[in-house]
Amino acid sequence: MAAKKKLSNPVVAVVGATGAVGVELIHCLEQRNFPLSELRLFASARSAGKSLKFRGKKIKVKELTEKSFDGVQIGLFSAGSSTTKKFAKAAVAAGTIIIDNSSAYRMDPEVPLVVPEINPQAIRTHKGIIANPNCSAIISTCQAASGAGAAAMEELRESTRAYLDGKKFTPKVLPHPYAFNAFSHNTKIDPATAHNEEETKVINETRKIFGDPSIAIGITCVRIPVLRAHCVSVTFECENPISPEEVRKILRKAPGVKVVDDVERNYFPMPVDASGQDDILVGRIRRDLSDSTGRSISIFSAGDQLRKGAALNAVQIAERLVG
Amino acid sequence: MAAKKKLSNPVVAVVGATGAVGVELIHCLEQRNFPLSELRLFASARSAGKSLKFRGKKIKVKELTEKSFDGVQIGLFSAGSSTTKKFAKAAVAAGTIIIDNSSAYRMDPEVPLVVPEINPQAIRTHKGIIANPNCSAIISTCQAASGAGAAAMEELRESTRAYLDGKKFTPKVLPHPYAFNAFSHNTKIDPATAHNEEETKVINETRKIFGDPSIAIGITCVRIPVLRAHCVSVTFECENPISPEEVRKILRKAPGVKVVDDVERNYFPMPVDASGQDDILVGRIRRDLSDSTGRSISIFSAGDQLRKGAALNAVQIAERLVG
Repeated sequence: MAAKKKLSNPVVAVVGATGAVGVELIHCLEQRNFPLSELRLFASARSAGKSLKFRGKKIKVKELTEKSFDGVQIGLFSAGSSTTKKFAKAAVAAGTIIIDNSSAYRMDPEVPLVVPEINPQAIRTHKGIIANPNCSAIISTCQAASGAGAAAMEELRESTRAYLDGKKFTPKVLPHPYAFNAFSHNTKIDPATAHNEEETKVINETRKIFGDPSIAIGITCVRIPVLRAHCVSVTFECENPISPEEVRKILRKAPGVKVVDDVERNYFPMPVDASGQDDILVGRIRRDLSDSTGRSISIFSAGDQLRKGAALNAVQIAERLVG
Repeated sequence: MAAKKKLSNPVVAVVGATGAVGVELIHCLEQRNFPLSELRLFASARSAGKSLKFRGKKIKVKELTEKSFDGVQIGLFSAGSSTTKKFAKAAVAAGTIIIDNSSAYRMDPEVPLVVPEINPQAIRTHKGIIANPNCSAIISTCQAASGAGAAAMEELRESTRAYLDGKKFTPKVLPHPYAFNAFSHNTKIDPATAHNEEETKVINETRKIFGDPSIAIGITCVRIPVLRAHCVSVTFECENPISPEEVRKILRKAPGVKVVDDVERNYFPMPVDASGQDDILVGRIRRDLSDSTGRSISIFSAGDQLRKGAALNAVQIAERLVG
């Protein structure tokens, strides 16, 4: 397949360019000096006509149609599952490699689900579509507004301002009041498991990324009033006894990870520190006190949902496609 | 001991009356129509002189001294560990039964640690001091500003307003920025376990309340930008297999608990709903998907840290002391 050759200075399209992740994709391409010959921006008819800056020049956002992919080698999709499903066929037929941020094809066995630090080899197996995991499968579970998009971030700001001013506010984007509140993740609950879609995604996608369907995961996903970085408290059990110091050593060498674990200053990963950062911050590395086998470790982590959780990971996949 | 007789219309003192929990203690006494003959309010010299309303009348807050306890039968203490330690002896010598919200004597084997719904029988064993558990030992671990007092609540409001107005804000009460942020609980870390004091309290106090030092608890305590109700995600393992429906039935009958578990409407416990409520809200009652034994259940809960987490629980203990 032609797609398996490394690409040279490809034409890149961002689909969903005006959304929270779309804007971040453009930032990532610019900051990482991604080798492209042309950037094209697409969005729905509603957002078409706007202009966005890239490398000092304004690029006009065009309406996405089936003809948008002519001459496009890489399509970074971030416009939701239904848009991906609607346009994937036309894009692949036009020779575009799709790197998709939606959940549309993540669990499709033909589609690699890639975190470049974990399973870059899976990129080679693509048949035109590569999926970018759900942010929470990478960083997980006390989640910021940004996971629900730019409109939810704005709703958090606006509802908080209304609360502080003693004014009424009716949520439009999210189903519950967000100002100074927290709530179980606003995705549909599967009655069979009583777990919501976000939780189910984390379980399934983690297994797919690690290539191990036996990984046992228990999870609760909650939204907290934080703007763009998620945080997560994880306790994991290893096959053999392991010390916090050994885990710390492994994480210090891990790409894309920054250990922030200052016990004396009580300084650990925080969403405000993670925001805008490429690295996932990891700290509170310690023994799980409920465990007597010495195999269980607890950590606390924060990572930017828009960057490593979406845009950055997609651009890292794209980088592996170019020569 | 005289203290073991039921009291009739006692003189009650609130120590730390102007703090977040102190104010809530006064609300609780009024709302629950607590049978008292007189309410006396005490605080530090700095806050003395203020007046607070109780049953339509203003009561002047006096400076706490060793002589404050003359004629006081019940002392509801909420002024921190050092104040409790400084005045406990004088109070007990004056015949006052202390119900203490601080951690000063919680782990003292001579001092009962009481949640009236769980171990009311422990009240009878007091020797002048009864401890009110750490809020998190009752409700636990994604914690609101109120746990750090009224000043921390104000700091959350003020720093959030500054953030929204694009102004700088330097935290004074808490060690980290709080607006739209989350951070590992701001108590000292024990280098031996790498767990902070809040986490250690939850472990130790839960064991003491249940009278079972073998309970294994793994815990991470995080502060989130919510004003007064904590929330917690708990996964617990039972001795024998149990279904979510059985757990739901038990919780529906449990005093002080309200099951909020509407899978279809995606409506579960939230801090804004728990705020000002006496009941602890419990929902997301489901199987832990990491467990294959059928003994492990996950829940999500929210409860008012100032009420059941502090003031209400103390007043409920006091109610058991009066006839």
